[in-house]
Amino acid sequence: MIVNGKNRQSIWYDASGDEVLIIDQTRLPHEFRVLSLVNLESACAAIQSMQVRGAPLIGVTAAYGVYLGLREDPDSLDRICRALAATRPTAVNLQWALQRCRDRLASVPLDRRVEQALALAQDIEQEDVAICEAMGEHGADLLEQLWQRKSQDHLNILTHCNAGSLATVDWGTALSVVYKTVQRGVPVHVWVDETRPRNQGAALTCWELGQAAVPHTLIVDNAGGHLMQQGQVDVCVVGSDRTARNGDVCNKIGTYLKALAAYDNGIPFYVALPLSSIDFSLESGLNRIPIEERDSDEVTEVAGIMLDGLPGRVRTAPPGVRAGNPGFDVTPARLVTALITERGAVKAETEAISALQGAADR
Amino acid sequence: MIVNGKNRQSIWYDASGDEVLIIDQTRLPHEFRVLSLVNLESACAAIQSMQVRGAPLIGVTAAYGVYLGLREDPDSLDRICRALAATRPTAVNLQWALQRCRDRLASVPLDRRVEQALALAQDIEQEDVAICEAMGEHGADLLEQLWQRKSQDHLNILTHCNAGSLATVDWGTALSVVYKTVQRGVPVHVWVDETRPRNQGAALTCWELGQAAVPHTLIVDNAGGHLMQQGQVDVCVVGSDRTARNGDVCNKIGTYLKALAAYDNGIPFYVALPLSSIDFSLESGLNRIPIEERDSDEVTEVAGIMLDGLPGRVRTAPPGVRAGNPGFDVTPARLVTALITERGAVKAETEAISALQGAADR
Repeated sequence: MIVNGKNRQSIWYDASGDEVLIIDQTRLPHEFRVLSLVNLESACAAIQSMQVRGAPLIGVTAAYGVYLGLREDPDSLDRICRALAATRPTAVNLQWALQRCRDRLASVPLDRRVEQALALAQDIEQEDVAICEAMGEHGADLLEQLWQRKSQDHLNILTHCNAGSLATVDWGTALSVVYKTVQRGVPVHVWVDETRPRNQGAALTCWELGQAAVPHTLIVDNAGGHLMQQGQVDVCVVGSDRTARNGDVCNKIGTYLKALAAYDNGIPFYVALPLSSIDFSLESGLNRIPIEERDSDEVTEVAGIMLDGLPGRVRTAPPGVRAGNPGFDVTPARLVTALITERGAVKAETEAISALQGAADR
Repeated sequence: MIVNGKNRQSIWYDASGDEVLIIDQTRLPHEFRVLSLVNLESACAAIQSMQVRGAPLIGVTAAYGVYLGLREDPDSLDRICRALAATRPTAVNLQWALQRCRDRLASVPLDRRVEQALALAQDIEQEDVAICEAMGEHGADLLEQLWQRKSQDHLNILTHCNAGSLATVDWGTALSVVYKTVQRGVPVHVWVDETRPRNQGAALTCWELGQAAVPHTLIVDNAGGHLMQQGQVDVCVVGSDRTARNGDVCNKIGTYLKALAAYDNGIPFYVALPLSSIDFSLESGLNRIPIEERDSDEVTEVAGIMLDGLPGRVRTAPPGVRAGNPGFDVTPARLVTALITERGAVKAETEAISALQGAADR
């Protein structure tokens, strides 16, 4: 992604200082700050505090976390993986990346483990970029077709949360589809769901689309259904934190409501995801995926920038109000038009998804 | 409603000072402030700035606005009604109240018009209280039945926006149903949708339920669908700003999404409304009710109380981001289980609603 004219990734390794660097996403959009992850503890903290977030990026950060942990103690692979696994429960990429690290590194002699862990993290990082680009191209095929059938002056895409470059190493999942569609010359406009309570849409997606000069309009999460009724949405594209073998999609809280509205209005609802976020062990998603319950004050207090330019926080609710804060929901497969993966678009059905398993295992 | 142990209405006339007083709802929940409407201009401003809001309360405020306007110039009934009618486009009660004022006052001699306008506003105010209480009792019949069929320890009600005492003179529409259900000894718990962008759920409904000691939990607007999937919602009750003759319900933006989720999960979705908010002239609601488009900065900036206790405002989005801000949406009648009116619950169907028209005209 381009940030202030410079090419950036959400996470990268700087060999000159033997450093793992990230964009601190809790500071965006108000401040662009690069942060160094110095050890296992800071990698865990970065995932937990959402300085990095988005299923694919969490996976890559975990792989680098294994490297940082082994650098401190090459003989503690299990402990390191357990610490990283405990940071966030919903995204399956985290478990997938850690499993891959365990499988690859457990049998490596201790004196070569650290360098191998770094090489593996770098591989996973660069694979993620390639996967996101492939996903984007497959999605762009679908959106280009939609555009060709449409007579209006631009293609209106609705997205929820941030499934962009910032949720991955680069390009994104849902937003990779947008970027690749733009590259083909299709004039697009993106409706950006604010995505309460953490406002990743307002803060991250608007920032990212602004940097990429993609036309967009921010809306509250409540507005998408109305816009669909009004014919102002041509297609929805979202990401996924974990998808079950039957096509049930776990994603940021509120995704289910948009999928219902898209279905009710005959609007295609696409989920862009790497194969690594499919949980092939899970027959279906409803009531089977652990849904992270986050802090009450994420709901009752809103963080942002005050009118004087300083970061600030306001409480909207009366003092003492208790808030429920489930982080994700599950969209039943029946509401999903197709899954867009790096291997192409497939129906959200057990048979089609199971056929992908071989590819995922490779 | 009880506020800090004292009985209050959202609007009232104080004869001792010949004053129309309101609770300034833009200050809640952080400050309880009573405001005097001194003339037509301040009545219009109170409606426009949402110091008073909620379809029924807007109607009553408009009636008092006519009184205040006539007090300045008894010969300007038309001008006064036009000024008030222009304040907010969606709620039909505003037009209904103004029509009633016009019908009643146009033929009254100028020297008696002011006192008659006051008497009429007071009538409309007290009628509103009686209507809300009746609506609440009819709704409580339905919720009590639901409760009797349920084996768990309390009845979980989800509501959107504020359709409470603060949206009316007293009791509310949807929340009157809640209060009357509580009075019958049914243990209830209310899920309160935050209701972006103005946060009326977080600010007003939580405040009101807290004052009334009704157990409640705040949630973001994104969360309701997930809670319904999890069996944590037994019934939805919302208000309405305008309902068409076929039962299409125009209400706060996001209502449609909750109705879709309720339908998808087999959960009753009730709309509590006075007959005065039914637009009998409107065959159906979709694309026929003017939807207010409000300021962009209601979305990009959030108002509340800062941690130091002072009122403040934070921006969540990057500078210069454009936001779309439709204030209402239309829930198709097919998703509405029943309309709860002061005359009882009726199906959201043309025949049943048309039968109410005679009652409304009386």
